[in-house]
Amino acid sequence: MAKRRQSRTASKNAPTAKSGVSLFRLPGLPEIHCGDNLSEQITNAARKARIHFKNGDILVVAQKIISKAEGAVVRLSTIEPSPQAQAIAERQKKDPRLIEVILQESRRLVRTDPVLIAETRHGYVCANAGVDHSNVPGDDAVTLLPRDPDRSAKNLASALRKRSRKRIAVIISDTFGRPWRLGLTDVAIGASGVPVLHDLRSTRDRDGKPLTATVLAVADELASAAGLLMAKAEGFPVVLIRGYRYKPSSEPAAKIIRPASEDLFR
Amino acid sequence: MAKRRQSRTASKNAPTAKSGVSLFRLPGLPEIHCGDNLSEQITNAARKARIHFKNGDILVVAQKIISKAEGAVVRLSTIEPSPQAQAIAERQKKDPRLIEVILQESRRLVRTDPVLIAETRHGYVCANAGVDHSNVPGDDAVTLLPRDPDRSAKNLASALRKRSRKRIAVIISDTFGRPWRLGLTDVAIGASGVPVLHDLRSTRDRDGKPLTATVLAVADELASAAGLLMAKAEGFPVVLIRGYRYKPSSEPAAKIIRPASEDLFR
Repeated sequence: MAKRRQSRTASKNAPTAKSGVSLFRLPGLPEIHCGDNLSEQITNAARKARIHFKNGDILVVAQKIISKAEGAVVRLSTIEPSPQAQAIAERQKKDPRLIEVILQESRRLVRTDPVLIAETRHGYVCANAGVDHSNVPGDDAVTLLPRDPDRSAKNLASALRKRSRKRIAVIISDTFGRPWRLGLTDVAIGASGVPVLHDLRSTRDRDGKPLTATVLAVADELASAAGLLMAKAEGFPVVLIRGYRYKPSSEPAAKIIRPASEDLFR
Repeated sequence: MAKRRQSRTASKNAPTAKSGVSLFRLPGLPEIHCGDNLSEQITNAARKARIHFKNGDILVVAQKIISKAEGAVVRLSTIEPSPQAQAIAERQKKDPRLIEVILQESRRLVRTDPVLIAETRHGYVCANAGVDHSNVPGDDAVTLLPRDPDRSAKNLASALRKRSRKRIAVIISDTFGRPWRLGLTDVAIGASGVPVLHDLRSTRDRDGKPLTATVLAVADELASAAGLLMAKAEGFPVVLIRGYRYKPSSEPAAKIIRPASEDLFR
């Protein structure tokens, strides 16, 4: 019903924010530090930008600021590299302390050369187990992925709802590589309030034939859409998605992780 | 400069289509048949919907209608399955003629069970080599991927430019699976006018540190964003993306294909 109404609206009017989906950067967010109250920072920035949250708004938040707020930051000067880390670092000409942090964040190494591809403690497979030194102040500090990004998303969504009195969904995104395609895309590593996987398998196509094997990774597509506006170097770690119709859901982003039994390469 | 202006605008005004990116479905497109002039169909549908194209608009077009317009459709009744196709079909309980078409579209099989993952003649790695029987009228017909999706995108962009006198970029999208993540996301298999990979490696982060290994798969993120509005069963195969700032580019989507030498699993 909602979707049919949307298409009727679109056919009668010129494009407006109401007939489709809109994405906006949240400007004016300060550098985030350990212990910062992100819901307060986001609400303040939105108020200054005269952005009034609405029910159904989706905030896509870059992993980096969640990690900073939660203190998921490690100073390399505190790290003692293991012999394994030293061996890998020598081959890759990298800082052995950085490699050590990556190894500590990994529960399985998919590949070590030419880059470390690891399965993180959460089960995400990505380069360097998500350990990153860009956009972290100082030469010495690296960020880790949040310990429990679904919980982080849930907490942030809940705090934003209390402050705004609006139902706001949260996706925590990071940029991951892909085995067969170059370049990174943004994916969801934490989610609260949006459907994560949209199963179309029970529906039928326009000709009445059942749609087989069509499960859309909605949370990843939302993260990718927002990624278009999160120019990495420019500090827009929060993007608002408005107008996307969805059924509120409590699915965690961890649901996207392909079980080991279905992993094509294990 | 442009980006700074954008963020200033956003901080002064409430969200409008001008301060961010907007996505709209193109309603009213008829069922596409072999030989149809897609640029005409799209222009007509846009006119009826009172959508006026602007310079810089990006049209994301589902592969399915490109294939139909180009006649990349095969009737299974014309196919004689090989013994290899029959063997796979028996294990998977599928139509051996469908498997035969998939094998003919493949230049390498990555995996045969439980689903066929193949490298297509173009080099794309996806389930069933992109052969699909959903949203194709009749029980007997399946679509193949367009023979040269980058050329299809280029031709469509050029025809749309002639009709609208606006610089319109085109992305041809399809939904692909991923090895480590469940669900499909939309990716670009053809592109004309937009950057396909955005290399941030020469830029620096907010602290002046070089951003290493940050190449964004922009065309894939655009395809994924549009995928949010292309509800598969409902016939919205064209989505307009407006407001995304980019440098016009002639990069083909084929540039996203990871070279065999860098493929993690070859």
